[in-house]
Amino acid sequence: MGSMPMQKRWTVKSRPTDEVRPEHFTLEEAAVPEPAQGQLLIETLLLTTSPPARMWLTSGGLSGKPIPIGDVMRGSGIGRVATSRNPGFAEGELVSGGLGWQTHSLSDGDKLNPVSKVEAPKDLPLSTRLHVLGASGASAWFGLLEIGRLREGDTVVVSGAAGSVGSIVCQLARKRGCRVIGIAGGEAKCKWLSDELGCASAIDYKHEDVGARLETLCPGAIDVFFDNVGGDALDAALAQLAIGARVVLCGGTSQYQQDGAWQGPRNYFHLVYRQATMAGFYVFNFADRFDEALLPLEDGVRSGKIKYAEERYHGIEQAPMALQRLLSGQNFGSTVISVAGE
Amino acid sequence: MGSMPMQKRWTVKSRPTDEVRPEHFTLEEAAVPEPAQGQLLIETLLLTTSPPARMWLTSGGLSGKPIPIGDVMRGSGIGRVATSRNPGFAEGELVSGGLGWQTHSLSDGDKLNPVSKVEAPKDLPLSTRLHVLGASGASAWFGLLEIGRLREGDTVVVSGAAGSVGSIVCQLARKRGCRVIGIAGGEAKCKWLSDELGCASAIDYKHEDVGARLETLCPGAIDVFFDNVGGDALDAALAQLAIGARVVLCGGTSQYQQDGAWQGPRNYFHLVYRQATMAGFYVFNFADRFDEALLPLEDGVRSGKIKYAEERYHGIEQAPMALQRLLSGQNFGSTVISVAGE
Repeated sequence: MGSMPMQKRWTVKSRPTDEVRPEHFTLEEAAVPEPAQGQLLIETLLLTTSPPARMWLTSGGLSGKPIPIGDVMRGSGIGRVATSRNPGFAEGELVSGGLGWQTHSLSDGDKLNPVSKVEAPKDLPLSTRLHVLGASGASAWFGLLEIGRLREGDTVVVSGAAGSVGSIVCQLARKRGCRVIGIAGGEAKCKWLSDELGCASAIDYKHEDVGARLETLCPGAIDVFFDNVGGDALDAALAQLAIGARVVLCGGTSQYQQDGAWQGPRNYFHLVYRQATMAGFYVFNFADRFDEALLPLEDGVRSGKIKYAEERYHGIEQAPMALQRLLSGQNFGSTVISVAGE
Repeated sequence: MGSMPMQKRWTVKSRPTDEVRPEHFTLEEAAVPEPAQGQLLIETLLLTTSPPARMWLTSGGLSGKPIPIGDVMRGSGIGRVATSRNPGFAEGELVSGGLGWQTHSLSDGDKLNPVSKVEAPKDLPLSTRLHVLGASGASAWFGLLEIGRLREGDTVVVSGAAGSVGSIVCQLARKRGCRVIGIAGGEAKCKWLSDELGCASAIDYKHEDVGARLETLCPGAIDVFFDNVGGDALDAALAQLAIGARVVLCGGTSQYQQDGAWQGPRNYFHLVYRQATMAGFYVFNFADRFDEALLPLEDGVRSGKIKYAEERYHGIEQAPMALQRLLSGQNFGSTVISVAGE
């Protein structure tokens, strides 16, 4: 009240050539901006970050347009409308969207910087809307069931299996009577896959030969491979496809750090040998059907049948470190940055 | 009659490390073998060869088992039953199957060395059964219509467009009201694509930048990419897919010469950006439906609406050179080796 409220924000300082580090960003402070007519001022509550963010710094990824140097780093989050000069939004409402790595942001509601109203799930932490009950949950659901055309009894292999999307894929497949093999980095993640998420086997890619393990566990027998990482894991899985297999491309985490020189899957011709399909998808193409996924997932989380892990950071100051840890696989679970309370 | 009939055959002498050449084979002569009870002796009339043959010499390709050194080189062809000790086959009947690069072969009809009876198409050269009215025609048909889910008005790009399969793909797509862009090597092939096969544009990959040309001709607008070659052409096409595109994997000619170290498609993640699908197939999985493809193709060839080109060699002696020319792209049309008349 007394002192003038300040906005903190991370801008892009330089483009990483390999690993992204905090020094690629600058923390700036400025006066909280004033909304113009038609705009709203949003106070950021929670942010999340996910591996494709690495590409926004260099190639630009899907958009092909990298974030200009000096601009605020992009990022999704949930905020509260602090001031509204837009009749579509009331002060105090919760909104989600591309708020950016900043404590306060302006939006015109639906054009330049669109946000959507969002409700907190009943009795559950608001942060679940940023992962299991948000885009990650929907990616797992539509990717596995629609793109992957999952059938009961399938052998399903998941890379990035302890991640935000992968962990839900494992559980959805297990609930449908599938044999699930998860690939993740490190003993703790693998133990979680086996003990909590229902995986029949877990492969620790940091300490095991993924190709050899898959050849032992499911030789020529992978019905669905749900890929979050690309690179060597994708090649290893392609070599063990069953006839008629479906490869679901969701992420390419292993490749984002060198996104100018991706490693293409050398074993792609196994799609010919096995009459198999590899298909990608963009989850927001399913946006009008998210409830199909999120309502049952919400029931699952509430009853304890769907588990999730969250790695929480406190304060906007930690955003660059959170991304660095995520890209190097040091995280455990979905990344949530608590910016203002909850 | 007078002198004892001799069998000529090409056996595998050594494994190529890059380009396959005639010195990788040995031409042997031996007495024509005698069929045992249950067997038939087949006199080879025509042989064909296609690019995957290169992999049988090294990785083994689909089977994973390369041809042992000293064994007869594999190859498909059409022959006439010269002597039958198998009640299922009469002397004089035509059969097709994996006869090998030899003038005479033994078969037990349906087990170790299976052959199928084949009829010459009415009024058309028997050799058409080895390409446009055989496996190549069926590959084009089922690959384009079933795996590629062709829709009227699609923009279709075909690599290896002047080849045995590609040339039929171009014509089938054109007949269905599609805009067809063919990629082939050299001016003569490109002229054939534009002047005879109905391609709206032809790209000469030996003298033009395929990526730049596709970006000009169909930026982000390829609905179906029918791939016979892999490598750089596949990457160039992946970069220009339309939303919901289908990539049909039929061949990988550019990669067979280095089949231990395939070049994976670096742009595979465009399947994610464009919610696209890449699918392979094995044409003999459609074997019981070949008539669906071959009867209309036969009508098309007879009426002149479906064109084909054939590069014909005379005598089994030319088989290795035919394969060498095919793999280096010097051929024009489907390869047919006339072994005994026609």
